[in-house]
Amino acid sequence: MPCHEGEIVVFPPTSVNGTDRQTDTDNQEKDVDLETRFPDGSVRLRNPHVAQMEQDVLYHLALGSGSHDLVEMFSDVKFVCMGGTPKRMEGFAYYIMDEIGYKLPAGTTLLDISYQSYRYSMFKVGPVLCFSHGMGIPSVGILLHEVIKLMYHAKCKDPIFFRLGTCGGIGIEGGNLVISESAVDGLMQPFLELPVLGKMQRRPAVLDKKLANELKQLRYEDDPFTATVGKTMCTYDFYEGQGRLDGAFCDYTETDKLNFLKQVHAQNVVNMEMESLCFAALCHHAGIKGAVVCVTLLNRLHGDQVDTPKETLNKWQEYPQVLVARYIKKQLGLPINIPQRNHPQVVKCPRQAKLVREQSESFE
Amino acid sequence: MPCHEGEIVVFPPTSVNGTDRQTDTDNQEKDVDLETRFPDGSVRLRNPHVAQMEQDVLYHLALGSGSHDLVEMFSDVKFVCMGGTPKRMEGFAYYIMDEIGYKLPAGTTLLDISYQSYRYSMFKVGPVLCFSHGMGIPSVGILLHEVIKLMYHAKCKDPIFFRLGTCGGIGIEGGNLVISESAVDGLMQPFLELPVLGKMQRRPAVLDKKLANELKQLRYEDDPFTATVGKTMCTYDFYEGQGRLDGAFCDYTETDKLNFLKQVHAQNVVNMEMESLCFAALCHHAGIKGAVVCVTLLNRLHGDQVDTPKETLNKWQEYPQVLVARYIKKQLGLPINIPQRNHPQVVKCPRQAKLVREQSESFE
Repeated sequence: MPCHEGEIVVFPPTSVNGTDRQTDTDNQEKDVDLETRFPDGSVRLRNPHVAQMEQDVLYHLALGSGSHDLVEMFSDVKFVCMGGTPKRMEGFAYYIMDEIGYKLPAGTTLLDISYQSYRYSMFKVGPVLCFSHGMGIPSVGILLHEVIKLMYHAKCKDPIFFRLGTCGGIGIEGGNLVISESAVDGLMQPFLELPVLGKMQRRPAVLDKKLANELKQLRYEDDPFTATVGKTMCTYDFYEGQGRLDGAFCDYTETDKLNFLKQVHAQNVVNMEMESLCFAALCHHAGIKGAVVCVTLLNRLHGDQVDTPKETLNKWQEYPQVLVARYIKKQLGLPINIPQRNHPQVVKCPRQAKLVREQSESFE
Repeated sequence: MPCHEGEIVVFPPTSVNGTDRQTDTDNQEKDVDLETRFPDGSVRLRNPHVAQMEQDVLYHLALGSGSHDLVEMFSDVKFVCMGGTPKRMEGFAYYIMDEIGYKLPAGTTLLDISYQSYRYSMFKVGPVLCFSHGMGIPSVGILLHEVIKLMYHAKCKDPIFFRLGTCGGIGIEGGNLVISESAVDGLMQPFLELPVLGKMQRRPAVLDKKLANELKQLRYEDDPFTATVGKTMCTYDFYEGQGRLDGAFCDYTETDKLNFLKQVHAQNVVNMEMESLCFAALCHHAGIKGAVVCVTLLNRLHGDQVDTPKETLNKWQEYPQVLVARYIKKQLGLPINIPQRNHPQVVKCPRQAKLVREQSESFE
């Protein structure tokens, strides 16, 4: 029997320079730096095997270290932004392009770099790399492994990762933002559990508190949304896993559900989604600053089904993008307050451009 | 503290007619039938809430019980086939169309029924419904909840579910088929664990053994692949979760990895993938016959990276389709041995059709 049920490994027991990571927080922080960064700040992998491989195929991204010049393509990346669907992230790519004033050469457009993989989509806008991550921990986990390896191969320096998502609010109405201070699983455990070689591995689901607060500060008084920093419950299922009554199966009552939601709310859980635990754990383990910014689609204390009109939902889904764009602009030294997206960058006069388009369409 | 760690619920404790499901296997089987089927064989939900809802939005499928005539659209469905990517499942839809001789009206083509959700894709070919399920247990789980509800709303009778996937073989070379007899998690546990309202729920990951053997019998001597019935290990991660050395993190050696793979192989685990545990558990709980047929992309005893050429991989990915198509044809009373896909059904003479196309393209 290879599997030792109940045997728990908190952090794998390897350590750098023989220090014991469990006994001293300062040493621990230092170890993480040494293990996850080269002296010039570029990303180092906590995996000795990759450097010895002839080529590393990033299978789910349709890229490889032998086939592609990853330094040439990606070494300027500073911000990695990920969210559920390809459509939303393509929209974000064009949005951030206008926000940071990134100019494409005339006659070019963005390409989905990973379109050959049929799994994730990937768009690059100067220093910003945008990914769709699909739904759930395994899907975002595969992506994170490969993006962290991509950062390493491309020699990226101190990249910051963001998840821009949707969630169910707990005590927060639909259309507002939650910035996760940390993530817990469905049993309120603050770590990601994963069986590795038959033993349960645990990694703390820690997020960068400073980054979370910086993001919160970038919400303005006149924004149509609030921004709350709080705990996020991350589940492995959307229906029973989140206590919904409307799945294919349900063995509890509405009262059971509400009692549960109120109990976790009393412990500062303000939203539920399906990726933050893995996102937090893998970013932290890689020594990468990460933030999770989600918009609430409903207040779960009032219901399960999302019945807000599509147009409203689409508008709400832009709110995390607004906040993250402000942060990126600030980091790049750009003016934050001035939205730069009144019209596509190459258009001098939108009215005349519209006329030209209409005339062109009607010309036979 | 709402969460009772360690408190385990094997099957939710509700039962029909006051019988105790744990004490008598025959009674248990009977209960499942009563709970999951109406007298006419149509799918019944183990959830009393759904029947009381004014409308049920199948949010991730872009369908609703109030907005769509689901009986009109789907009541003829007999087979539900799912696999990872939209592209592969669209390909399967056209393949099964030719195999079962399903004719579309002239001038029509298949539509992705769920394209508005941007999450899953969905194609219908007469009695066969095809879905992409994304990667990992949470993603396939959301789909299964909504497809089982769809079967209920559409009054489908005794549908059979198939997962057509890819996997890593253990002791089986690339390009061969594995039909799962059951699924285990990374700790060799034969059930799906899910925290529900703060308690750990367990559901047996049982698959239909008769169906698995029927599928195996449909492999012919001259097929370019073998077909093995065995245990499938289902993991929550592709890299560390499957003992790979090539993830962003790795704290074990190649020897550790091989020892683990050999140990699970000795317990009849013949492949690894990322969805079967949930597929088996939810199908079984819904009283739906399910089978998992995967093609191996490599033998994990020999490596981690998939370096087989794309064309070969694409060919291999058709093998599960071949086997499942034979089963469907047999069930429909169609001849199994005669492939019916030499050319599109509306073409009488492929040579002349090609000429017409070329002439049409060059005509200015």
